[in-house]
Amino acid sequence: MSAPKKVVLAYSGGLDTSIILKWLMVEKGCEVVTFTADLGQGEELEPARAKAEQMGAAAIYVEDLREEFVRDFCMPMFRANAVYEGQYLLGTSIARPLISKRLVEIARAEGADAIAHGATGKGNDQVRFELAAYALEPDIKVVAPWRDWDLTSRTRLIEWAMEHQVQVPKDKHGEAPFSVDANLLHTSSEGKVLEDPAEPAPDYVYQRTVNPEDAPDTPEIVEIGFAKGDPVSLNGEALSPAEMLTRLNELGGRHGIGRLDLVEGRYVGMKSRGIYETPGGTIWLAAHRGIESICLDRGAAHLKDELMPRYAELIYNGYWFSPEREMLQALIDRSQERVNGTVRMKLYKGSASCIGRWSEDSLYSEAHVTFEEDAGAYDQKDAEGFIKLNALRLRLLAKRNAR
Amino acid sequence: MSAPKKVVLAYSGGLDTSIILKWLMVEKGCEVVTFTADLGQGEELEPARAKAEQMGAAAIYVEDLREEFVRDFCMPMFRANAVYEGQYLLGTSIARPLISKRLVEIARAEGADAIAHGATGKGNDQVRFELAAYALEPDIKVVAPWRDWDLTSRTRLIEWAMEHQVQVPKDKHGEAPFSVDANLLHTSSEGKVLEDPAEPAPDYVYQRTVNPEDAPDTPEIVEIGFAKGDPVSLNGEALSPAEMLTRLNELGGRHGIGRLDLVEGRYVGMKSRGIYETPGGTIWLAAHRGIESICLDRGAAHLKDELMPRYAELIYNGYWFSPEREMLQALIDRSQERVNGTVRMKLYKGSASCIGRWSEDSLYSEAHVTFEEDAGAYDQKDAEGFIKLNALRLRLLAKRNAR
Amino acid sequence: MSAPKKVVLAYSGGLDTSIILKWLMVEKGCEVVTFTADLGQGEELEPARAKAEQMGAAAIYVEDLREEFVRDFCMPMFRANAVYEGQYLLGTSIARPLISKRLVEIARAEGADAIAHGATGKGNDQVRFELAAYALEPDIKVVAPWRDWDLTSRTRLIEWAMEHQVQVPKDKHGEAPFSVDANLLHTSSEGKVLEDPAEPAPDYVYQRTVNPEDAPDTPEIVEIGFAKGDPVSLNGEALSPAEMLTRLNELGGRHGIGRLDLVEGRYVGMKSRGIYETPGGTIWLAAHRGIESICLDRGAAHLKDELMPRYAELIYNGYWFSPEREMLQALIDRSQERVNGTVRMKLYKGSASCIGRWSEDSLYSEAHVTFEEDAGAYDQKDAEGFIKLNALRLRLLAKRNAR
Amino acid sequence: MSAPKKVVLAYSGGLDTSIILKWLMVEKGCEVVTFTADLGQGEELEPARAKAEQMGAAAIYVEDLREEFVRDFCMPMFRANAVYEGQYLLGTSIARPLISKRLVEIARAEGADAIAHGATGKGNDQVRFELAAYALEPDIKVVAPWRDWDLTSRTRLIEWAMEHQVQVPKDKHGEAPFSVDANLLHTSSEGKVLEDPAEPAPDYVYQRTVNPEDAPDTPEIVEIGFAKGDPVSLNGEALSPAEMLTRLNELGGRHGIGRLDLVEGRYVGMKSRGIYETPGGTIWLAAHRGIESICLDRGAAHLKDELMPRYAELIYNGYWFSPEREMLQALIDRSQERVNGTVRMKLYKGSASCIGRWSEDSLYSEAHVTFEEDAGAYDQKDAEGFIKLNALRLRLLAKRNAR
Repeated sequence: MSAPKKVVLAYSGGLDTSIILKWLMVEKGCEVVTFTADLGQGEELEPARAKAEQMGAAAIYVEDLREEFVRDFCMPMFRANAVYEGQYLLGTSIARPLISKRLVEIARAEGADAIAHGATGKGNDQVRFELAAYALEPDIKVVAPWRDWDLTSRTRLIEWAMEHQVQVPKDKHGEAPFSVDANLLHTSSEGKVLEDPAEPAPDYVYQRTVNPEDAPDTPEIVEIGFAKGDPVSLNGEALSPAEMLTRLNELGGRHGIGRLDLVEGRYVGMKSRGIYETPGGTIWLAAHRGIESICLDRGAAHLKDELMPRYAELIYNGYWFSPEREMLQALIDRSQERVNGTVRMKLYKGSASCIGRWSEDSLYSEAHVTFEEDAGAYDQKDAEGFIKLNALRLRLLAKRNAR
Repeated sequence: MSAPKKVVLAYSGGLDTSIILKWLMVEKGCEVVTFTADLGQGEELEPARAKAEQMGAAAIYVEDLREEFVRDFCMPMFRANAVYEGQYLLGTSIARPLISKRLVEIARAEGADAIAHGATGKGNDQVRFELAAYALEPDIKVVAPWRDWDLTSRTRLIEWAMEHQVQVPKDKHGEAPFSVDANLLHTSSEGKVLEDPAEPAPDYVYQRTVNPEDAPDTPEIVEIGFAKGDPVSLNGEALSPAEMLTRLNELGGRHGIGRLDLVEGRYVGMKSRGIYETPGGTIWLAAHRGIESICLDRGAAHLKDELMPRYAELIYNGYWFSPEREMLQALIDRSQERVNGTVRMKLYKGSASCIGRWSEDSLYSEAHVTFEEDAGAYDQKDAEGFIKLNALRLRLLAKRNAR
Repeated sequence: MSAPKKVVLAYSGGLDTSIILKWLMVEKGCEVVTFTADLGQGEELEPARAKAEQMGAAAIYVEDLREEFVRDFCMPMFRANAVYEGQYLLGTSIARPLISKRLVEIARAEGADAIAHGATGKGNDQVRFELAAYALEPDIKVVAPWRDWDLTSRTRLIEWAMEHQVQVPKDKHGEAPFSVDANLLHTSSEGKVLEDPAEPAPDYVYQRTVNPEDAPDTPEIVEIGFAKGDPVSLNGEALSPAEMLTRLNELGGRHGIGRLDLVEGRYVGMKSRGIYETPGGTIWLAAHRGIESICLDRGAAHLKDELMPRYAELIYNGYWFSPEREMLQALIDRSQERVNGTVRMKLYKGSASCIGRWSEDSLYSEAHVTFEEDAGAYDQKDAEGFIKLNALRLRLLAKRNAR
Repeated sequence: MSAPKKVVLAYSGGLDTSIILKWLMVEKGCEVVTFTADLGQGEELEPARAKAEQMGAAAIYVEDLREEFVRDFCMPMFRANAVYEGQYLLGTSIARPLISKRLVEIARAEGADAIAHGATGKGNDQVRFELAAYALEPDIKVVAPWRDWDLTSRTRLIEWAMEHQVQVPKDKHGEAPFSVDANLLHTSSEGKVLEDPAEPAPDYVYQRTVNPEDAPDTPEIVEIGFAKGDPVSLNGEALSPAEMLTRLNELGGRHGIGRLDLVEGRYVGMKSRGIYETPGGTIWLAAHRGIESICLDRGAAHLKDELMPRYAELIYNGYWFSPEREMLQALIDRSQERVNGTVRMKLYKGSASCIGRWSEDSLYSEAHVTFEEDAGAYDQKDAEGFIKLNALRLRLLAKRNAR
């Protein structure tokens, strides 16, 4: 790889990416364009702009991507009921491809030949950023300073920063007790105090959900309306995608919903322990399963369930922009056309439970299922032939095995 | 099918199976052997014996199958983390093959040519009973009175009972407000007052779990020990399979854990709504996932996750005794040899959460994952080649697509 | 099911469906509308029209469906490389849903309340006809005389026919030595002389392919052009779907290509033995795999391969008109957009082999794969990191297992 | 990675691995142990021993692994009917883990800290060698000279060899027109003259099969006996695993069977074109499918078919020694216990076709399938209920969709 000349940096405004910004200029001799996105992480963006300006960025992009994030990334993913390793709602994984997409688009607009990110060489995020970038712009260069430089201890990093006039806030001289990633879908915490998976996570790790013990003593009942598999209204009020997730987050956070303490298998081959808070997403998933339960045919539902783990793995591993993810998405979206209706959810001290669901597109037929007289909707005698023919191969097998 | 001469009946001692017992004798002219099993449903069995005697059963079997049920049926199933349609823990489904197995074995011992059960023609249980029976004894006859007789209204049924000297308890003249199945793993309720899936289930439906609102205000922390994927100790005390599930049920019941309100797709083609209570099983599943998270390699874990929905579907549909279930079981069991260790669970108002896990067989390597200096355990530069080669096909694709 | 009043019959003009036509009128008191389709079975249709007229059909439909058959049924199926049980190209299975679709459409147009077909109660075709019909018109009635009547021996059937003035050709008084189904895609033969799977099929069973020993001694090389996954030209000549398959059949038939002697598992639970001749389809499948090999990304190709057996099973079992088949089709079709180019096939004495392929949309990169100097297209050092990180979990596992 | 001290080299005796042998001693300062295996590649091994001795190998291992290769690697793989990308019989892939296994075992015995192989950095074999080695011995070092040295042109390589007293046979000064790998299962050829996938492979590339045009004009019929899924006899003669494959190779080679011209997706991300000859393996696969067709239940067979592509991918990618391959193997082997019997194969000018099969363990029931009177084995009326209940969900769906 020849040396990059102009780099678009995913820039948070924090100390680490500020050091990277300076390092790219000083050590790599690059022009640097910064890109700071509001994905709902809950931080002010203007300070990032000011800092980038002051440090000499060649161009500065600050963008609110919340609606796009929820509409084009979270929503397709939730249509699949995607969970990784049975539990993780993929809150970090799903944000990375959007950031890469914008990095690449900005690189094209600015004539930059490279992008840079602040992910380490041990984690999944580097893979996600880079696979997405290469898939969209195959000749882009990628600079990953954490794999590249020799600032491998906190002390050396801070020294370098101070030598090169990067402002180091007083409380950042030491190491953070754990590492955090946040966006509108979730907050994840990992590392340091969390590295022993036998030990419960300390309370102060949780940032956007109350402890269930501190949640209200009275359940809250809400109704979520779905159209084509996506949540579109809350208690009858139509909401945009990002508004919807914001409101679900408020509800989930208040009721202590969506905390997860997980040891997971990273794509790079090691296991890691993460604390995830996905308050709104946890409600969303349960509600989506609720509306699917009456609107999706069994054949469709089971096919989706069987393919979900692989779909989730693709997102986790960074293959959002791959033909196989897109093929699975086509399959999933095909199933959601009639997933319309309303779900009633009970929120209480950490749990989000579906307690009612109804739809113009329901497949539930009280006429068929009733214990009462069903007026001929269903002929119980059909069951005998059904069982007999399903049993035939098992009976032939039993006879063979008895020989 | 020629007329059966001697039938082994799955007999609960309740009104419905008592009517069947009499009906088989009167209308079919059969000798009837009764089989009553303690699967942990929480009812006395001796009254069933007395009743069967009094009604003239040719032979009477009353058996405590709780240990076999948990050891040979529930445990293999939980090794797979089996849930049907994303949520249902298969409590009824997994009990049926054991009952059929004993019915068939008793038929052989007694020289009976048929078995009989009290399941209706609309449900899954008839399928499960009969597929299992045919798979074990291909020439057995099956009598399913609910598909056969014309006692299709409650009134006619009660009339027939009274005409034929079947004792009808006073409170059974009317219809039950819903139908119940119970065993050590779960209690399910369905039908009648539950037939509108939009309406929350009334409180009185729940039978073995307290309402989470009424559960203790303080979480309870327990430790569950696993050996080869099965739970074997609670807070350090070794327990037999059935003891273990009994104790987990007590814990779960007290903390309001394991309630599920679900609309599911039945094998016979209709959707139905069920209320399930699986207190111990819900803790078990979460704990098993917890211990697997450190003991199972990612390749093994993901393969299990992808095959789980099909495995669960096989059990739900009644194919416990099928080559494909047994093949999947061989695959699953192969993965569990090193799933040993302890999980710490927090139980609180409806939730069972894993908050710690440790094992001699852990694959978690703090040396690799640490944010600190890792002494060469992991070379971050390897990540670049890893990403580059994983990206290669995506880059070739992007170039092609740009042509 | 109340008695049908007006039935649309899938009518071939042969003796068996002629008897059914009469039987529906005489025994069921129905009006009968006949439907005779040209699916490329290679028989004249006008005699069927004449016979139906003479026997008093209420209305007569005779239609050439060859283009629709290939375009809307065979082509989507071949995009999936569908083979059942590793070998069968689904020639009968794929024709049934089209026939049912037209039966239902004609029933609507004619105000008929039922359809009828001549498939037996032991086979797959009854299932395919009826599942398709119910999926398209849920309240349609289906009459399946072979399951219904008591004309179970050939002798009784012929007697009934003669009693009721159905013309019985002289050579039809005895039984055919085997049973045949044919359409543009294939000819299948089964039953009678073929019922012992240990015995090779007699030569006279084969109807549209020469014995490979009798095929030309010189290979024939042809070029097949594909667009979006479908074959569209032969040796440079653009062809319609049905023309294409017709021409491929000529080629395959001449070279003894596409014979298959198979024992397969029927959906109704028994195994059966069939002799299939799919001359053009066999060439088509090999050619499609050839063009996919350069145009499909590995991720897309492997996903298709993994889902193919289930897709094929759905078609075999009669679920063409099901949400899960349609979902899989959406996934498959999504993969075919750039499957364009040309394949060179060698046809010789029973084999169809791809010996060359090229495409504007090829993903094959000589620059990358070459053993020669590659000008930096690929950095061999990347492979080390790739292997190291893919190995990491295996190494952690080996260390754990050695403990 | 610290410098290796003693290396076990996979040594063929050819020029390239001889240069590696010398290079390891000269440039790396290592002791070198050579390992030369007879996997049926058809070359004398003693010259390799002599050459290794003469060049100063610290220890020399020459072993005949043919029986182990077929018994412990090929046979498990063929039980799965494994083919990669629909066509490739994995002849190279399946040999690599055995070689790595012995390299690691010899390293342990000799106190060596590293292994070395002669695979390039572009191919799959490096991955297969190294993943297997790491899985068996997690701390082993791997030396892959082709990724490491700067002898990247043929000229420089030969110069280096001559400078360092490596004998260079006269005909090896130039480059070979293509690259070959061979073992008892197959011969593969790739590179150079084969790099344009549009061009047919020249005749001289094929090494162990005659051109089908040159094969005998008369078909040969053979009978292959299977026990537990493995071929154990040919025309009634019991054979050891390696003898069996040797004999099948003779048959296949004589009849031009098992040629394949394929473009495949390599694990490292590029597509490559290979010419494969797998004469015996092609007969084996077809025969195994033949015996399975009567001995395997449909449920077992379809599950195997669905999992096969992933199993094949694991072997192709080098994951033979992985938990997921072993889990799948457990599943597959579970299915083969009753796969016993005999298959009659017709071999003719490139084709191997099953034309008859019989077994004591057959599930084929002429009594059930017959077109004749079946004496009550099968009640055709059962089919109606079977279809009705399978159709129910489709009918409910159609009604919903019509709303």
